[in-house]
Amino acid sequence: MPVTSQRGTLMPASPIRKLVPLSDSAKARGIKVYHLNIGQPDLPTPQIALDALHRIDRRVLEYSPSEGNLSLREKLAQYYATFDIHVSAEDILVTTGGSEAVLFAFMSCLDPGDEIIIPEPSYANYMAFAVSAGAVIRTVPSSIDDGFPLPRVEEFEALITPRTKGILICNPNNPTGYLYSQREMLQIRDLVKKYDLFLFSDEVYREFCYTGSPYVSAFHLKGIENHVVLVDSVSKRYSECGIRIGALVTKNKEVRQKVMKFCQARLSPPLLGQLVAEASIDAPRDYMQEVYEEYLGRRNFLVDGINKIPGCYSPIPMGAFYTLARLPIDDADKFCAWCLESFEYDRQTVFMAPASGFYTTPGLGKDEVRIAYVLNRHDLAKALLVLRKALEAYPGRTLPG
Amino acid sequence: MPVTSQRGTLMPASPIRKLVPLSDSAKARGIKVYHLNIGQPDLPTPQIALDALHRIDRRVLEYSPSEGNLSLREKLAQYYATFDIHVSAEDILVTTGGSEAVLFAFMSCLDPGDEIIIPEPSYANYMAFAVSAGAVIRTVPSSIDDGFPLPRVEEFEALITPRTKGILICNPNNPTGYLYSQREMLQIRDLVKKYDLFLFSDEVYREFCYTGSPYVSAFHLKGIENHVVLVDSVSKRYSECGIRIGALVTKNKEVRQKVMKFCQARLSPPLLGQLVAEASIDAPRDYMQEVYEEYLGRRNFLVDGINKIPGCYSPIPMGAFYTLARLPIDDADKFCAWCLESFEYDRQTVFMAPASGFYTTPGLGKDEVRIAYVLNRHDLAKALLVLRKALEAYPGRTLPG
Repeated sequence: MPVTSQRGTLMPASPIRKLVPLSDSAKARGIKVYHLNIGQPDLPTPQIALDALHRIDRRVLEYSPSEGNLSLREKLAQYYATFDIHVSAEDILVTTGGSEAVLFAFMSCLDPGDEIIIPEPSYANYMAFAVSAGAVIRTVPSSIDDGFPLPRVEEFEALITPRTKGILICNPNNPTGYLYSQREMLQIRDLVKKYDLFLFSDEVYREFCYTGSPYVSAFHLKGIENHVVLVDSVSKRYSECGIRIGALVTKNKEVRQKVMKFCQARLSPPLLGQLVAEASIDAPRDYMQEVYEEYLGRRNFLVDGINKIPGCYSPIPMGAFYTLARLPIDDADKFCAWCLESFEYDRQTVFMAPASGFYTTPGLGKDEVRIAYVLNRHDLAKALLVLRKALEAYPGRTLPG
Repeated sequence: MPVTSQRGTLMPASPIRKLVPLSDSAKARGIKVYHLNIGQPDLPTPQIALDALHRIDRRVLEYSPSEGNLSLREKLAQYYATFDIHVSAEDILVTTGGSEAVLFAFMSCLDPGDEIIIPEPSYANYMAFAVSAGAVIRTVPSSIDDGFPLPRVEEFEALITPRTKGILICNPNNPTGYLYSQREMLQIRDLVKKYDLFLFSDEVYREFCYTGSPYVSAFHLKGIENHVVLVDSVSKRYSECGIRIGALVTKNKEVRQKVMKFCQARLSPPLLGQLVAEASIDAPRDYMQEVYEEYLGRRNFLVDGINKIPGCYSPIPMGAFYTLARLPIDDADKFCAWCLESFEYDRQTVFMAPASGFYTTPGLGKDEVRIAYVLNRHDLAKALLVLRKALEAYPGRTLPG
């Protein structure tokens, strides 16, 4: 039998996915599982988008342009302008989800052995795309104790080598919900400028900023326009993760030309998703406002609830729809598996994401879990009660009984 | 400004795409352009698939499983069984087009520096995906003079090194339309077995075999079940290239496990496309028969027409919907550009794909073009007349006047 790739071995297995069979088996035993583990919004896709889907009247579902439909790219440019991000349709390449935008950014900017620096905890799939591209991720830890702010500039600088090609940030952040401040963004800008780096900026959660603090896009930073590669997606903001439409946005023409070759190789992004995404951008203000307020209400409710459980701590996330919380447990991987495998309260249990998958530094985040607030408050309340009961029963709890 | 990747530089630019601006400019001058250049079927998507699209009544367009919907994978397994390919839903991973199946196959089976052997001319994007994966493609030339059969086994063996990990075939072939015989497939099997190689088999055109010769799938070959990685797509067979649904099929569990990690990293294949693809598999026999007969009629008409033009030669393609023809010209790249830039007959011209993009050996295919018969016979007749006139007028013609 032929030998498979080392790269495939290096690819990280999702720490969440490996718990899925346990969850399925809990369900098979008739146990209600509250899914706090994934960023799959439960809120409805905008009606205007669903209507557009039903109105599609093409006879042939044919390829669209490799760079995406012009009408969608123009509409995205208008959308970005409302956030004071001034780009033209030409600067935008439509991708198959934000995932493909990350992959193509890495493929176009990084060669095997090139390094990028990412604050951790961070979205686990950046690592997977780095492995795909043969690139190396170096991480600078941020800490739950001060709410996961940007690590100090010196910590970034300590990791810079001749192979360092970029910095990646996710803002607002998945998994922490942290929103980088103006001051932090300027620090990033200075680093990027000083060392002539790419700034990969994943800003798919920009609609969800819950504080008075401004959302500072990488595109708001002066003097590094040619360094910025923005990753975007319609998945989260319009609850349409399944249509697989994202975008890579950059004013750097050379990057665009290279990305375009990867776009051409895979022929075209999904046609149907593009038609839905384009309509979604016209979602009424009311829709966006309701979604925003729903997440805000859930955040307050959830964080408050977590902090009321003895030994638990969650900072107040300023954006996105996740929080990374510390629990009084020995090992979150074990605890999350135990909740699905060995625990039930009133025929219910919870599915959370152990934070270990979001760190690359071994040992970090061992007592942390990511909780996505993609359930309504009624279910969140029940999930919080189940979590409290689970922590009381868990053999590996660290809280003095 | 930061330095972009060498990989991006190595990525081949599509030889067809670079002619697109010339075609657009011809159209802007009011010239009718016959598109013989791309594999975008003009035939309608099955009504049953369009109906399924309109019936989608989900409230949230959410992620589907990373491996694709089970119902689609089960349906695909039933479909393959009708071609005597016996696989289970578990052996099938749904991909974002056949393109992603090729990329994931390379990523999972090949490491940077690993080599695969492909008969040329071949589909240009295999090269692009090999560059993405850091793999090296070695080609064995096949010749128009005998109709592009499989090159001799000795020619494959001459290229085998310790880094050789696989052989890739496309059957029926794009761009040649060649259909590998039982004897040739057995030769491939013996090679694969002898040198313990992967056999990547792109069989997306299996519905379109026009001779009495049987379609021999890589899965029909005994004794190499764990070596075969099949690439498939619904794009061509149901005229739905835009939905981006393909599949990677393999009985090799280790390969599947690795591919699954790449599937998980990009979260999920397109949801809407999967719903359409699943319905398409139920397209009535009449639909498939009509499509088949239409392509068969066009093939006969086109090949006959080409061979009647002085100095032109096309073998009779046995499958797919392309032919690779030899023209009496100095350079097909120049000729194809000239047709769009400098020629018109009765306010019409033709857009063909220069064959150079399908060869890696420099100089091969210099007087060859790929012609896709994705136009109706009426338009094909006009396109043939325009081609004849263009060849009469072309300054670089090699036929004695």
